[in-house]
Amino acid sequence: MDQDVVIVGDWGTSRLRLWLRQGKAVIHRRDGPGVSALTDTPEKTFLDLVGDWREANPARAVMCGMVGSRIGWREAAYAPCPAGVADVADKALSFEADGLPVTLVPGLSCVNPLGGPDVMRGEETQVFGALSLNLALKTGRHLLVLPGTHNKWTVVEDGKVAGFVTAPVGETFALLKQHSTLAAGGGARVDGSAEGFARGLARVAEHGAARLTHLMFETRARQLLDGMSPADAMGYLSGLLVGADVAAARDWFGPMDAVTVIGAGGLCDLYVQALAQAGVQAATVDGDAAVLAGLAAISKSREA
Amino acid sequence: MDQDVVIVGDWGTSRLRLWLRQGKAVIHRRDGPGVSALTDTPEKTFLDLVGDWREANPARAVMCGMVGSRIGWREAAYAPCPAGVADVADKALSFEADGLPVTLVPGLSCVNPLGGPDVMRGEETQVFGALSLNLALKTGRHLLVLPGTHNKWTVVEDGKVAGFVTAPVGETFALLKQHSTLAAGGGARVDGSAEGFARGLARVAEHGAARLTHLMFETRARQLLDGMSPADAMGYLSGLLVGADVAAARDWFGPMDAVTVIGAGGLCDLYVQALAQAGVQAATVDGDAAVLAGLAAISKSREA
Repeated sequence: MDQDVVIVGDWGTSRLRLWLRQGKAVIHRRDGPGVSALTDTPEKTFLDLVGDWREANPARAVMCGMVGSRIGWREAAYAPCPAGVADVADKALSFEADGLPVTLVPGLSCVNPLGGPDVMRGEETQVFGALSLNLALKTGRHLLVLPGTHNKWTVVEDGKVAGFVTAPVGETFALLKQHSTLAAGGGARVDGSAEGFARGLARVAEHGAARLTHLMFETRARQLLDGMSPADAMGYLSGLLVGADVAAARDWFGPMDAVTVIGAGGLCDLYVQALAQAGVQAATVDGDAAVLAGLAAISKSREA
Repeated sequence: MDQDVVIVGDWGTSRLRLWLRQGKAVIHRRDGPGVSALTDTPEKTFLDLVGDWREANPARAVMCGMVGSRIGWREAAYAPCPAGVADVADKALSFEADGLPVTLVPGLSCVNPLGGPDVMRGEETQVFGALSLNLALKTGRHLLVLPGTHNKWTVVEDGKVAGFVTAPVGETFALLKQHSTLAAGGGARVDGSAEGFARGLARVAEHGAARLTHLMFETRARQLLDGMSPADAMGYLSGLLVGADVAAARDWFGPMDAVTVIGAGGLCDLYVQALAQAGVQAATVDGDAAVLAGLAAISKSREA
């Protein structure tokens, strides 16, 4: 086996992304089904996808995400916070698949800042990746946010994840857009507009996150009474939900200097805009770059 | 025709309830499909259902609800707030169906106390019914709440609806329960427990309505980490949503003396419990009694 060649992957609920790396270079990338959409066992699915990559003699495969959950391949127990790269590497689950060593990164559990329990799986790898891409984040206290189906507000202290809280903003928005009367005017079939999003942000900024439940129905009433278009209405609803998430986080974390937003371009932009509306500066880190850097850091720590 | 005999109905999105009345007595009750579940035209559906009641020579039919909307039989334009029984009766839409005079009660529109637009259809009739069942509500300022798919917080001033705000609490809960990862542990198939509901209420009371987005995911985390049962988890989620709705309303309306809760038993009880948690007393009015009393009041006002 070539110790310099590794397979790394992010295997989530809805998709699998695999990369074949040699040193710091990515040689190939391949996509597959998420763990909730498998038509075969995780092992068979994985081995089929990486079949021809085995010719490069990879030393091992390291993967993060829901693959390490109860609904995944095997369960890697959560590492409790505070947790750094070394803690996660220590708790990783290793086994062999057709002779290839496979390591599954554990998720993190914590008592969130509101005193309740919380969990993440996959995002911890992106957080550690962001820390290795931006060394300034490795010392002191920083707030990072990973927007998505389950948005994760994450506090890092001296290179360790101190705690986090999950806001199911993306999931709630998707359900309301697909199924609710708020989208009955045709919203399910259109993308939210930027103008609608900005109006939603402004509206929740005006009244505060506590009023979210009482502002949401305006999405429908504005279509019925004011002729708001479905695209503007869906943007408006998104702006209300994201704006309330950011406003609540701002109150909760106190004054923020700058927030690091990790993820794909479009979604990051919405959070950057919402943070700006709340008077907070933001820096962005590409989600793919973060996951690759994080898997490299965990893999390296495991070797050490 | 017998002026003393009337058909009254509440024809909503998901169900139709019809009553044949003689004076103050209900002679028959019959149920049918909501306007979103029709297999025939509204006219044909209605005439088929009331066919044999025509032998009693009813003078007219008066119906409220979505039957008067764009997706109903014919559209009865919203009456703007402030609006009393006479205003609603004036704006009602009348026509004939197979020789029977039919009147559709209009909904109400308003600028809500947050300065946004809002609408209701059907609930106005229950509100006017509650006022005719409890004369103490006819003078002064009162807050009424009608829990449901779209919860309506309604302010009545000297017998008129001054304004209202809609919180889509029931719809949001149903979507999360049916489709979200918060219910992935089996929540979709069980009823929420009373114990879980009380815990959710207490949790949101502790942290405030602004934290709702950041508390919701605990529904999942408590199942994963603390072994919370699906029934307790669904109760917990319901408690969070209802608790946040009540807490926000309380801040918004200022100190409340007592709130009138209108609706079916089980749902009313949840709101009474949430209001008690917020230190507010509540009185309840049965939803069926309210709609019958409201239709009678509107019908009478139209005759006058």
